[in-house]
Amino acid sequence: MAFDPRQLLLNMFDAAVGAASPERCVPPHLPPRPAGRTIVVGAGKAAGAMAKAVEDHWPGPIEGLVVTRYGHGAPCRAIEVVEAGHPVPDAAGREAAERILSMVQGLTADDLVLCLISGGGSSLLALPAPGVSLTDKQAINKALLKSGATISEMNCVRKHLSAIKGGRLAAAAAPARVVALMISDVPGDDPCVIASGPTVADPTTAAEALAILRKYAIAAPDNVLAHLGSPQAETLKPGDPRLAGVANVMIATPQSSLEAAAAVARSAGATPLILANAIEGEARDVALVHAAIARQSYDFDQPLAPPCVLISGGETTVTVRGTGRGGRNAEFLLALAVALDGHPGIHALAADTDGIDGTEDNAGAVLAPDSIARAAAIGVGAKARLADNDGYGFFSAIGDLVVTGPTRTNVNDFRAILVRC
Amino acid sequence: MAFDPRQLLLNMFDAAVGAASPERCVPPHLPPRPAGRTIVVGAGKAAGAMAKAVEDHWPGPIEGLVVTRYGHGAPCRAIEVVEAGHPVPDAAGREAAERILSMVQGLTADDLVLCLISGGGSSLLALPAPGVSLTDKQAINKALLKSGATISEMNCVRKHLSAIKGGRLAAAAAPARVVALMISDVPGDDPCVIASGPTVADPTTAAEALAILRKYAIAAPDNVLAHLGSPQAETLKPGDPRLAGVANVMIATPQSSLEAAAAVARSAGATPLILANAIEGEARDVALVHAAIARQSYDFDQPLAPPCVLISGGETTVTVRGTGRGGRNAEFLLALAVALDGHPGIHALAADTDGIDGTEDNAGAVLAPDSIARAAAIGVGAKARLADNDGYGFFSAIGDLVVTGPTRTNVNDFRAILVRC
Repeated sequence: MAFDPRQLLLNMFDAAVGAASPERCVPPHLPPRPAGRTIVVGAGKAAGAMAKAVEDHWPGPIEGLVVTRYGHGAPCRAIEVVEAGHPVPDAAGREAAERILSMVQGLTADDLVLCLISGGGSSLLALPAPGVSLTDKQAINKALLKSGATISEMNCVRKHLSAIKGGRLAAAAAPARVVALMISDVPGDDPCVIASGPTVADPTTAAEALAILRKYAIAAPDNVLAHLGSPQAETLKPGDPRLAGVANVMIATPQSSLEAAAAVARSAGATPLILANAIEGEARDVALVHAAIARQSYDFDQPLAPPCVLISGGETTVTVRGTGRGGRNAEFLLALAVALDGHPGIHALAADTDGIDGTEDNAGAVLAPDSIARAAAIGVGAKARLADNDGYGFFSAIGDLVVTGPTRTNVNDFRAILVRC
Repeated sequence: MAFDPRQLLLNMFDAAVGAASPERCVPPHLPPRPAGRTIVVGAGKAAGAMAKAVEDHWPGPIEGLVVTRYGHGAPCRAIEVVEAGHPVPDAAGREAAERILSMVQGLTADDLVLCLISGGGSSLLALPAPGVSLTDKQAINKALLKSGATISEMNCVRKHLSAIKGGRLAAAAAPARVVALMISDVPGDDPCVIASGPTVADPTTAAEALAILRKYAIAAPDNVLAHLGSPQAETLKPGDPRLAGVANVMIATPQSSLEAAAAVARSAGATPLILANAIEGEARDVALVHAAIARQSYDFDQPLAPPCVLISGGETTVTVRGTGRGGRNAEFLLALAVALDGHPGIHALAADTDGIDGTEDNAGAVLAPDSIARAAAIGVGAKARLADNDGYGFFSAIGDLVVTGPTRTNVNDFRAILVRC
């Protein structure tokens, strides 16, 4: 087992991103060329790269429009790539959604709509239902976030205030055949959750959406209440004939990326252990649990004997109290550094597979047993930086940021902890 | 594998507590009877039960005094058991510490001091150094807790303000032989940390203690500074001849209890996986990580295929924001319940091995897939109770508290999550 720890972790992250790269995972899932037209639409952080992968491998004429996040575009020839606001929707995304919706209307059963869906698509494809304004949607969204409503309750309300979600995009395309290729960034990989399921039936109802607003005492304006009381608020239900020609295909998931990284560790001679692909929670507390498991491996050969790599995915959160810089992966890794306190034999990497940790220019960072000492030697205190939420500043100071630029895909966060004796 | 999930989890908890029970783990480690006197002293949540175990198995005359927490006493014949304040030291503990210190003085090399040390001993054996008042110590302790000082920094200061810690109890007993039997409740099982090491050499110095007070700008009164500048502030250093006759023996640890519980799971046909014996962090976030790992087992047979039991130890914390009741184990389990949201096939137990979760009358609680639904049916909302830090109220309402009373030992928290297909 002669491997460089840092390089192994970087190779594992590359493999995780690579497994979700549209260039690799779109072509095998492309359907046969239809007799009629092929329209490509889509939204998400990977939409640009997915559109390019389609163009590069499609055996006939093609046209369409996809919307992605600012900075995540890709150079397409036939498919228009629009960049728009994320996570806060903006007018660019709204106009793109309107054009996408009209583009798939009036098709025949000979035509094909390829729908390219990935994480971030919900904000990028924000088109309020007729009679509801973007401002209305945003106000209700904010109130829901504060209310303590569950994610599924919030999604239920959102879908019933949208003109494109909850299967409506696919319904608009009927009788054309619809193939949706999806890259998941959500726990459980439920297709009706990714980008709020524009091509997927929604079992929830407008009446339930109204009940949720009442349950959390959310004051909605009269026009919103009127909309939710009208038949056109209803999403497409399972079994709806307008969805009969739709195939939703999951082409990449957090799990498949963790598995790809695990294979890299295994072939380097370090036993991989995937703990979970969808870990949530405050980044610094999630780090404490990872630190304890890494120490357990070092001290007791449990849950696995070294050399081993503990792998996890999912999205942590950061409660910002300080004034420092950094996304949730830098915060996780700095908290891990403080908890491990220079423990010998333990290296780690934490990074966002989309290449952007929060709002910084790094994907994440790497940690070595000597990181804290190297930082201290130049006057950078790990504990103080953690208290200031300054993970970016800490790892930047010791040259241990991982910088990739936007990867044009997104299967959520990637964490790997290498334990050696 | 025909087992009742709830009963299996309760059996595992019983095994974890049983493995650390003084009645079981003290007798095998008792030294031979000395030519001279045998004095028993000690402190900690297990001190009463440890004293009783010594009495029950000692082949000769015996005398002594141990101090334990209110409610944790045991009916001894020859050894006096004093109950005192924990976690806030009180006069009863201070007086007991004074008596213990004088009791071990004036012994000969033919005599034996059996020192019974367990978690909680640090508060129960709080004897300030001459010239330092209990009020001084408490004020500095509070300031340290707020300062962001590490545990080892706090212990360094505490030991140098004490008349009994940092090896001083053993030094007072010289030239008598000292055998310290220890039950660990701390990460890493370091004997100089448990009860602040009254029989263990301390590598830190009074000068370091002073530097820590300066580092965190803690204003100490003149008498405290004078003490820290004097030679008698120094703790016993490794290699000190006064510690030559001391044997420190770890007779129970969190790890040994987790292993005992794992054996119970294994013989019931559920594969155990010990994640870590010393997990720290905010209880509700630690629960989110455990929930994600349990789901991963259910969905992907990773890190282990069902039927399996994920086991962990260590002490979480609770940031109280609500007005409800409950210790950290109830909080953990309620957060786990909310995260799993009635997930089929997953049962769990979380409880404190000392039998007291926080300041309540329960050790912990158990969780079943139908817990949330049973609570909802009687108007008890899991999410609302979690927001109110009311884990006790939630599990009490559905009759799922685990109540043992004080177990008279302490190897920290015990958590087990059973996953079945």
